[in-house]
Order: sequence, then structure tokens, then C-alpha cells
Amino acid sequence: MSSTFGKLLTITTFGESHGPAVGVILDGCPPGIAVTAELVQRDLDRRRPGQSAVTTQRKEPDLVEILSGVFEGVTTGATIALVVRSVDARSQDYSNLKDVFRPGHADYTYWQKYGVRDHRGSGRSSGRETVGRVAAGAIARAVLEGVGARVQAYTVQVGDLVAGARELEFAEQNVVRCPDRAMAPRMEAAILKSREAGDSLGGVVEIMATGVPAGLGDPVMDKLDASLAWGLMSIGAVKGFEIGEGFAAAKMRGSEMNDRMTAAGFATNYAGGILGGISTGEPIVARIAVKPPSSIAIPQKTVDVHGEEREFAIQGRHDPCLCPRVVPVAEAMTCLTLADALLRQRAIESWRPRVRV
Amino acid sequence: MSSTFGKLLTITTFGESHGPAVGVILDGCPPGIAVTAELVQRDLDRRRPGQSAVTTQRKEPDLVEILSGVFEGVTTGATIALVVRSVDARSQDYSNLKDVFRPGHADYTYWQKYGVRDHRGSGRSSGRETVGRVAAGAIARAVLEGVGARVQAYTVQVGDLVAGARELEFAEQNVVRCPDRAMAPRMEAAILKSREAGDSLGGVVEIMATGVPAGLGDPVMDKLDASLAWGLMSIGAVKGFEIGEGFAAAKMRGSEMNDRMTAAGFATNYAGGILGGISTGEPIVARIAVKPPSSIAIPQKTVDVHGEEREFAIQGRHDPCLCPRVVPVAEAMTCLTLADALLRQRAIESWRPRVRV
Amino acid sequence: MSSTFGKLLTITTFGESHGPAVGVILDGCPPGIAVTAELVQRDLDRRRPGQSAVTTQRKEPDLVEILSGVFEGVTTGATIALVVRSVDARSQDYSNLKDVFRPGHADYTYWQKYGVRDHRGSGRSSGRETVGRVAAGAIARAVLEGVGARVQAYTVQVGDLVAGARELEFAEQNVVRCPDRAMAPRMEAAILKSREAGDSLGGVVEIMATGVPAGLGDPVMDKLDASLAWGLMSIGAVKGFEIGEGFAAAKMRGSEMNDRMTAAGFATNYAGGILGGISTGEPIVARIAVKPPSSIAIPQKTVDVHGEEREFAIQGRHDPCLCPRVVPVAEAMTCLTLADALLRQRAIESWRPRVRV
Amino acid sequence: MSSTFGKLLTITTFGESHGPAVGVILDGCPPGIAVTAELVQRDLDRRRPGQSAVTTQRKEPDLVEILSGVFEGVTTGATIALVVRSVDARSQDYSNLKDVFRPGHADYTYWQKYGVRDHRGSGRSSGRETVGRVAAGAIARAVLEGVGARVQAYTVQVGDLVAGARELEFAEQNVVRCPDRAMAPRMEAAILKSREAGDSLGGVVEIMATGVPAGLGDPVMDKLDASLAWGLMSIGAVKGFEIGEGFAAAKMRGSEMNDRMTAAGFATNYAGGILGGISTGEPIVARIAVKPPSSIAIPQKTVDVHGEEREFAIQGRHDPCLCPRVVPVAEAMTCLTLADALLRQRAIESWRPRVRV
Repeated sequence: MSSTFGKLLTITTFGESHGPAVGVILDGCPPGIAVTAELVQRDLDRRRPGQSAVTTQRKEPDLVEILSGVFEGVTTGATIALVVRSVDARSQDYSNLKDVFRPGHADYTYWQKYGVRDHRGSGRSSGRETVGRVAAGAIARAVLEGVGARVQAYTVQVGDLVAGARELEFAEQNVVRCPDRAMAPRMEAAILKSREAGDSLGGVVEIMATGVPAGLGDPVMDKLDASLAWGLMSIGAVKGFEIGEGFAAAKMRGSEMNDRMTAAGFATNYAGGILGGISTGEPIVARIAVKPPSSIAIPQKTVDVHGEEREFAIQGRHDPCLCPRVVPVAEAMTCLTLADALLRQRAIESWRPRVRV
Repeated sequence: MSSTFGKLLTITTFGESHGPAVGVILDGCPPGIAVTAELVQRDLDRRRPGQSAVTTQRKEPDLVEILSGVFEGVTTGATIALVVRSVDARSQDYSNLKDVFRPGHADYTYWQKYGVRDHRGSGRSSGRETVGRVAAGAIARAVLEGVGARVQAYTVQVGDLVAGARELEFAEQNVVRCPDRAMAPRMEAAILKSREAGDSLGGVVEIMATGVPAGLGDPVMDKLDASLAWGLMSIGAVKGFEIGEGFAAAKMRGSEMNDRMTAAGFATNYAGGILGGISTGEPIVARIAVKPPSSIAIPQKTVDVHGEEREFAIQGRHDPCLCPRVVPVAEAMTCLTLADALLRQRAIESWRPRVRV
Repeated sequence: MSSTFGKLLTITTFGESHGPAVGVILDGCPPGIAVTAELVQRDLDRRRPGQSAVTTQRKEPDLVEILSGVFEGVTTGATIALVVRSVDARSQDYSNLKDVFRPGHADYTYWQKYGVRDHRGSGRSSGRETVGRVAAGAIARAVLEGVGARVQAYTVQVGDLVAGARELEFAEQNVVRCPDRAMAPRMEAAILKSREAGDSLGGVVEIMATGVPAGLGDPVMDKLDASLAWGLMSIGAVKGFEIGEGFAAAKMRGSEMNDRMTAAGFATNYAGGILGGISTGEPIVARIAVKPPSSIAIPQKTVDVHGEEREFAIQGRHDPCLCPRVVPVAEAMTCLTLADALLRQRAIESWRPRVRV
Repeated sequence: MSSTFGKLLTITTFGESHGPAVGVILDGCPPGIAVTAELVQRDLDRRRPGQSAVTTQRKEPDLVEILSGVFEGVTTGATIALVVRSVDARSQDYSNLKDVFRPGHADYTYWQKYGVRDHRGSGRSSGRETVGRVAAGAIARAVLEGVGARVQAYTVQVGDLVAGARELEFAEQNVVRCPDRAMAPRMEAAILKSREAGDSLGGVVEIMATGVPAGLGDPVMDKLDASLAWGLMSIGAVKGFEIGEGFAAAKMRGSEMNDRMTAAGFATNYAGGILGGISTGEPIVARIAVKPPSSIAIPQKTVDVHGEEREFAIQGRHDPCLCPRVVPVAEAMTCLTLADALLRQRAIESWRPRVRV
């Protein structure tokens, strides 16, 4: 099971939903970055369950402990280990699911792959695995902020409801994390209504990175958008990724889509901040499609490990719509991808011939 | 510049558009796979330029030579090197572009990254780089066919025109590679009309993989769909990726989206053949958004390396719509991703505890 | 800082000598391997400080906690995290060394590389980092034992004293871990005498792996002996590696060195169990040179971070000869290397053409 | 089969002894390095067979062609492909060996691993594979020379004959590549005498790297000496590696071995230029043990693929002692290792806190 992401700046996450702890190792972090438990906690608190009525009611304080790699408030260049203990794991909620393949979950495929399964709360396939991503992402964010880059994600669609405005400060002031003042309460209402019906809703999260230097990413296999796609599609429940105009580009003509350059810089940004796999210096804009959570209260039919048909109802505490909590995870994966590309670029840019624009 | 894709079965491509040759090294291929130059050529011929009026008119026979790794018609387990010599490189077509940043191209970003640039036909950022991918993909396809898996891609959208039918044999019988008999000629006409106008069109390519065993892919960072996203987004001009219902999943409810299992297997396949990052055994269905080619005949305004504004017109021979030629490249990246996951699965499945369904 | 070793079966260690904990993530472990904290503890106890008069007197119980990847006594295929809390860290022992470059230590080079330094007990460059290696190695050992392979290391030289006999059970019955009954007490006496003099001694550790299947390792860059060399040379204080006849092969003729094969198998094993980078099925025999520990009580002259000459004496509790405690670490790195090669071989052997000897 | 070495600066070699070509892809090379075919040829000519009476008499001009990555005499940052065609492959020399396991060769292990085998001249396990290493190493050397580092290897032992002097310019003026004027002719005579007897000789090659900046290498798994060990042990026939005092360190006391620092720098260099896995700035000195070539003219007994005992005599043209031709390969692997570490150091050193010595 590969739990590692990145090339020079790498993370490896660990931990099951109902095990004693989840966490991450961040390796390759440059020295001299100011990092404290509080800095990491800030992002973890945004991912934490039980924040509002639109998220799962599991109560986890998700307090991070830094086990290594930080000395007297700064990174030393050494491997950073971050651990979060779990406290509110109610494994008994899952005892009736021990031998059942829940539809839309990884139960069946995990069983096919490994032949064993930690059935408690999806084990390793749980969204709880993302605690480690968010913790490491907070440090990657600090690396990026050191060069003036800023990453924010927000919910732009819930079910049929699509945000128009992009008031980014507002996005962190409502439980749905929607940047549209008019749409946010409607989205919240839709999620609550869906939960009352025992059902769940999908949505779309947009990621915006500003201040990213030009020149990050590689032109062939490690195109910056390909790396972002890998990182963001590795988040559970994400079913699609697009950069810039994305699928809308299919309907455009070249004369429309080509971002014209002037002496003042790019006149448009249909490309979404990346050309030929390398950042242009313009804002990087990407979107991910988030499926409705598989865990719903409505009784469902399925089969068990013996191939017998069964009906079951899920009793655990679950998110009725994942978007609000995918937001910090999407930010984390974006920060990690960009910081890794930044480090790799540092490795070559000192060699760059001096004849420049 | 990372030109490597894959973990156990890896490719590394090389070559510039107007250099002497392009090619690939395929490493990690299992021994005993029947491989000939003809087998590789079959896929290369489908990618070759000049196949029809809807592709670039550059004439390249793209004949492959196998330099290593195949002995007496079978792979030996050794590193496979495949080389294709270029013959019809008209570098003079690009002499007027030497110091110009073409809009929508990697010219500006490549310059920002490396400070030097092979301006002849985009150098390494050219679509010609994909020759190596397709050549290696043909061998990965042979590996997959050995376990009964089959991968096909086809054009499902060109501009506003969307295919309805999925007549897969027909897809290879028309120049657009569209699986819809009614829509194919309309798409072809639209492309030709766009080219006459000196412009270009975008589209969507769908990839279908059948017969893929359950259990491929990893549940965390190397989710099979995340790996596919990486591989397919690393193809130039691809701006979006989706699996199964993709972005349409944003509008679905959990009770709709969850693929119900019965004693006879999965009743639906909204997930697109992958659950929790691991293949289910159902067909894997993905789509990629392809932007309209940046190289258009219409004169465009831009700046040069000195920051001066310039107007220029592209004179090279270019594709008016990339979809028909992206099809074999998308198949190659899918074959490589799946074959790599298959090999990695082989590494663990012999350890699988024997208590199974 | 890369703290990762392995390709399919990987470890990433973390933790500083005087930080709150050290540990490791083991990824890629196959499912179904019986693993308990006791199994891991057994190897950790052999590495633990304070075992005897010939090791450092730091008192660390080194109790391991399994945080993930093991469920109901067997591995699940998921990422395994192992943590060991530190309790007897006397950082004040190091306060006088804060700005001094201790000779033979990584102080100066770490400073040159990172510009910061965790001066407490060498920080990340401490031998305490190997706790994670040994913990993960215990699980790799369990994987190997499942196929009948067995790995043991032992001290064959301390200073001028060279072991003749190879009584392997005896090696674990004396504090020096020497397999020669006559030599063990003499080695012990030499170490104690050296410690009384405030000095330290070097030595040689031999590693023997039996029951290793033929076919492990790759013939080019990842030759099995090259991987072993990487793994074993990555242990601090190791200055040399040799396989089979090693440096003695320089004096041999081909007609002597070539291991002749008969119908009954190999008649000799000068190669040390590996030919062309691939295991032969014969015992793998390697040796590593271990330098005398740099931390000695004798006052030494050096410079500090300001370039000023200084005299200092080390006050911490240190090993007078590293061999006895390098033994379990060398076993761990050997187990990890072999288990990784075993998994990679599993990935290809099912493809092997069926025409065999 | 992994044929890749390196992390940021990577090589992947390809080609069999008697296939149409051998070569290499070098990826991650920084832009702006002056590279020509002549520069690469210079190192290839030093590795070429048939240089003197003490090497194999196979006649290969080994002319390199640069297929990509170099434009107008400088590297562009793009993937560099280098190919060398083979011309003097006499496969018939090997027809009698088709089903025989030659002692000391990879025949048996390759067969065990892959179940197929390219029997012509050892196929992929041939020393001819190193053509790619040397070609890529020449470019890595150019990278290093840009920062003032210089790498040279030379023969310091042949059989019982050990060089005393280190007259490095002289090493390239005699066919044995020995830096000792008195010993060189004796070594040459010993090799010729051994060849006349149909036998072969082992030896030791020493590698010296000067001008290497302090700070290269990682303190844990990717210690610079561990990476060198990996790279050098991956050369066929190498049975041992040591750095600095190496195995002699086993007999030293800490008070002797610790390299004392003064205001003027290091007073000694017993460590061999690396402390704690990181370069000190002092010369890096390593040695490798080279076994006597397995291919000897003396008839030998062995078994064939059917388990039948056979006697055979090798008829191909072979090296009677590998040291002279291992020299350029050892330099190449050292250059590649150091250049990779240099690039990785560039990735982090710009982050280094500014408070320095």
C-alpha cells in the first residue's frame, strides 16, 4: 500500500479510522521554517469532525503532537513526524458491518486486494486518513508562504446549487465554506434536508493558488497539473479534476482559449495558471468533483463476504456532504504538490543560464 | 525534467520534436511476453501524423526499432529501448518563432524554468514526445491482454458535438475516432471547417478498460484513479479528468450513486470501475478534456523574450483538433498505468490470506 | 533529508536522540503476516542501550507501540507505524557541546548542510535513529521466515581480535555477540579496557542469510549486493562492506574464485550467495567494517562554530565499541533489503515462462 | 529489472552485449551545461575494449550519438538520450554456451529469476552495459567540474601487487591505470602472464574526488557513502566497497580515527571526506574490490539447464583483469552519485538559515 506522495518533499500517512492514532511523516522539508504545533493545529481544526451540523458528529479534538524535525520553533531539515491520537472511536457501530460489503465503499475492493479487512469505520480507507495530509500540508503551506504563495479552497457547488461569487474571506465564515453569500445558506439548508432524508449530497470544490512563482513543474510526466491531479484525485470521494477552463475547454476554439500575452503580462488565464505543465505565475485555479458520501442512513441492499444478499442500515456518524471537510484536505494536497515542485525547481534554477528576459 | 512514469513498470521518454529521434525506455516488463516491432508499430501507426485531413500534414513514417529487451520474439525481463527516427522535421518553419512566446504554448514557462529553449517545434513540449509513450504502451497492452484486459479510447465530443452511441468497433473506422455513426461525419466536418478558418477545436476523449481484474490500485496515495489522472493529465493539452460519473456525481445523491451489489455482481457502475482507489472488476470508464490546439493560423498578438509586443502567424503543420491523435496516447497511458498496478498487485497477492469470498 | 529505504517494502524512520520519540513507518508489507508488539520487542531488546557493561549506560526500555497496520494479530496490508517513546534523555549532558564540532561526528557537516542543528545527543545523526530500523526489520524478518529464510549477524572482529569459529547460537549468549567461544571473553575484556582508558574500539560484523530463494535482486542497478551495500552502509559508523570473498577476491585467480556447479548444486560459495546481482540460493555472507565510536572520554581539540579552537571532553553515556549493538541493526537492514527483493520478485515470477530447469 | 540509478539526476541504461546498441537516458540534468559528443566520447574511449593487450580484443569503436537534450552545444534541461551502436558482436562465440551455466556468471541466477536468457555474451549482465553509465557519467562530470570538483579512479592492486605511490597523472599513462611508476609494469606483466595461463586476476580500484563542496549527502538513508556504495557495488564483478580507512578502521581506536579540526580545517582525513553521511569538503577516497573475471580459457566443469554435468571452455574475447576498464566506470558512478547529491543540496541550501559559521 503506497501511502507516500511527493518526490523531494514527501509525506507518508498512517493510521486507521478506529485505531489508536493517525499521523504522517513529512520528509525533505527545508530547514529554518518556523513551525509550531499551533500552526499545524490551525489547519487540523478546519478539518476536524463535529465542527457544525453539516459534518459528522464524531467528536475528535485532533490534537497534534510534533515528534521530530522541529527544534526551538524551526524545522531542522530533519524528518518531521506528526501524530494525532483518536479518542472517540465507537467501533461497535461497525460490528454489524463486519462481513458486509457496503455499496460505494472500498469494502469489496479492499477484500479482493488484501483478503483481510479492518472493518471498523473503513479502516485505512476512511476519511480519517486525511488528518496526516492536513497536518503535513500546514507545514508545506508555511514553506509556500515564505515565497509569497497562498492556497485556498472553497465549495462552489452542492448538488444543483452553484456558487457565482468568489468572496474568499467569506468562504471561511460559513459552515459550507462557500464563497457566495447568497448561496451559502441555501447550500447549508440543502445539506441538512438531505441528512434528514437519510441521504447525502455531492458537490464541487475549487482550489485557488496565488503568488506561485513561474517555472514550477516539469514539462513531461510531472506536469504541475498532472501532479495536482494525482494529489487531489487521491482524496477519497473525488471523481474528477480540472484545471483552468477544464471540461469547458472542449467547447472552445484555439483563438479563444489561447491566453494572450502583453507587455503587462497575461491578459487572460483560461489555462488556469499552468502552460505545458509549468506554472505561468498567474493564479492556479482547479476544481474537483466530490461524490455524495456512500454512508447513508437509508437501508440498502448488498451482499456479504459469503455472497449472500443482505439488507443493512449504517449507524455510524457520517458527513451528509463532504465538501466542507474536503476543503482543507484539498488545500493540503495542493500545498504539498506546489512546495515539492518549488523545491525541485530550486535544485535546477541556480544552474539556469544567465541570459534571461 | 522528470520524463519517467510508473513504479514497477516504468517508462522514460526522450526526444524533441525536431531532434534526430524520439523514443522510450520501458523498464520492469515481465519476461515471456510476445513482442515484435510489428506489434509496437500497430499502435504507432494509429498515432502517426498525416493519417487524414483532420490531422497535421507532417509526414513521419514513425518506424520503430527495438534496441534491447526482446530476444527471439519475447521479452527477457530486461530493459526495453524503442527508438523512432524523425525524417520530416522542417525546423525553418519555426525560425520566426525563435524569440517569441506563442500564446497557449509552453514557450514562456519553459523559458522561465530553464532559461534556454529548443524553439524548433516546441522541442520537448511537443506532442511528438508521445511517440515513446505509445510505443511502450503497446507492450503494456500486450501484458494486459495476457490477463484478458482490453483498453480502448475514442472521441466522444468535438466542440459542441457530443457522441451518444458507443459502437466501439466503428470508432476505429472513421478519422475522428468517434463511436457514434451519426455524429462522426458531423465532427469531421466541424474540424475541417475550423481548420479552413485558421482556428482549432477542443473535445473530449473517453477511455474504456474491460476485463481488468479486481484488486488493482492502492487505497491511499496510489489510488488507481489517481494514477490514471496523473498519467492522462500528463498528456499535453489535457485540461480535465473524470472517472465514472465524474463531475456529474456532484449533482447525485448517495442513494443514487452507490453501486448496489447483488449475488450476480454489481448492478450499476456509476463509480467507473474503481472504489476506494481499487478496481472492482467492472469496466473502468474515464474521460479527459482536450483543449483546442494552441497552434492556429490566425495571426496572434504576443510578446517576445525582450518583452516587446509582436504579432505573428504560425506556419508549421498542425492538428486542427487533437482528439483523434490523443486517442492512442490516452490508451497508452491507461495501459501503462494498469499494467504497473497489475505487477504491483502480483507482488502482494501471493501473500493474501487464504480465507476469501 | 531522505529517511526512506526500499522500493516496494519501504521504511521511513523519524526521531532525534533527545526528542520525545523515535519510530518508523513500514509501507508495502503484505497482508496476513502474524505480527505482535512482542515480536517487534524481541529485536528491539537486542538493540536496547544498557544491556551490558560493553554498551552505553543510557537506560531506555524502548517499548514499542503499534499505531496502525496490524489488526487482530496480523498485518492487513496497510501502512504500519511503530513508535518508541524516549525516557532517559539527559540533554544537559550536551549543553557544553552546543557550538562545538565534535571530531568524527556529523556536527560540522550537518551544520554545513542545514545551517541549524539539534545539538542534543547528535539529534538525527544519533544511533538512536536505528530504533525504527530494528522495529521495522522485525516485521521484515517475519516475512522472510515465512519463506524459510533466516538472517543472523554477529561480531567477528574487535580491534585486532578476529573470530575463527562460527558457532551461531553462541553469538547470542555473550555480550559481544561473538560466535567464537574462545575469542568472546577476550573481545569483552578488550572493550572494557578501552573504555577504562576513555577510548573506543572498532570491529567487523558479519551477516549471514540462509534459506534465501534463488532469483532475488536485479541484474543491473539494483543488484542484491548493491542494495545490501546501500542498506548496511547507511548505518552510522560503517566504513566498509564486502560480499563473499570481498576484498580477498582481489588476490584470487578466476579459476579459484568461480564457484563450480555440480548436479548436487554449488560446490563452493566464494561469491557469497549472489551472482550477477541475483541470489543463488546459497547462504548470503557479507561483512561490514565498524569504526571506533567517535564519542570518547579522552579530551579532544577541535573548533567551534565561530572557528575558534576549543578543547572539550564528552560527558554523555556512550558505547565503547559499536559492534554488539550494530548486530541487530545490520540484521534489520538485511531483512528489509531481502524482503523488499522478495516482494519485487513476486511481482515478476508469475510471468516467468514455464520452460524451466 | 531496475536499470535506473539516482534520485534527481537519474540514469537508465539499456542494451545487451550482442544486441544492436547500448545506451542511456540521463534525466534531470540542469540546463546550460556545455556538452558535445566529443566530451562524452573522451570517457567512452577510456572504457572501450581493445585498448591494449591487457583488455579484451573485441573491437568496438563505441561512437556515441546524442539523440536529445542538447541544443546548440548546451544542455537544455531536457532528457538526454545517448546511443552507441555495436558492430563487432560475434554471437557465434557463445552458441556452445546456450544451455550451460558458466561458473561465476549470472547465467544460473538469471535463469532462476526470469526463466529466459539472452545467452549471447551474457546479454544484459555483460560489462558492455556500462557503456551507458560511462556516457552519462561524462555529463555528470561536466556538472561537477562547474563547481570545481574532480573525480579520478585508478588501479591500486592487481593480485598480490599493491601500489604505493599516488602519481595520478601517471595513472592515465599506462595500460593498467596504476598511479605507481614502479608497480605499473609489474602489474601489466602479471596480467599478461595470467592470460597466457588461460586464467584471470582480481584487483582493487581506488576513487578520489577532490573539490567536492561540504554539505552533500543526507544524514540517514541516503548517506553519501551509502549512495556511493550502492553505485559502485552495482558495477559487475565488484565484491567490496570501503570509504576512508574502511576495513582498516576496525583496528583503530577512536582517539586515532577521529579527524581533528583546527582553525585551518581538518588535520587528517581518516573518514575519507564524509562524516555522518555528508561531505566534509576534504577529498573523498573510496576503494572497491574487483574479482577476477569469470570468463577464463581454462576448461571448467559445470551443469547445463537440464542439470547434466558438462565441461566447457570459453572462446570469446575477454578481459584478463577488469581493473583498467573498471576505472572509467567507477569514475562515472562516482560522478553520477556526487552530481545527484549536488542537485539535491541545491534544492535545500537556498532555504538554509542565514546564521552560519
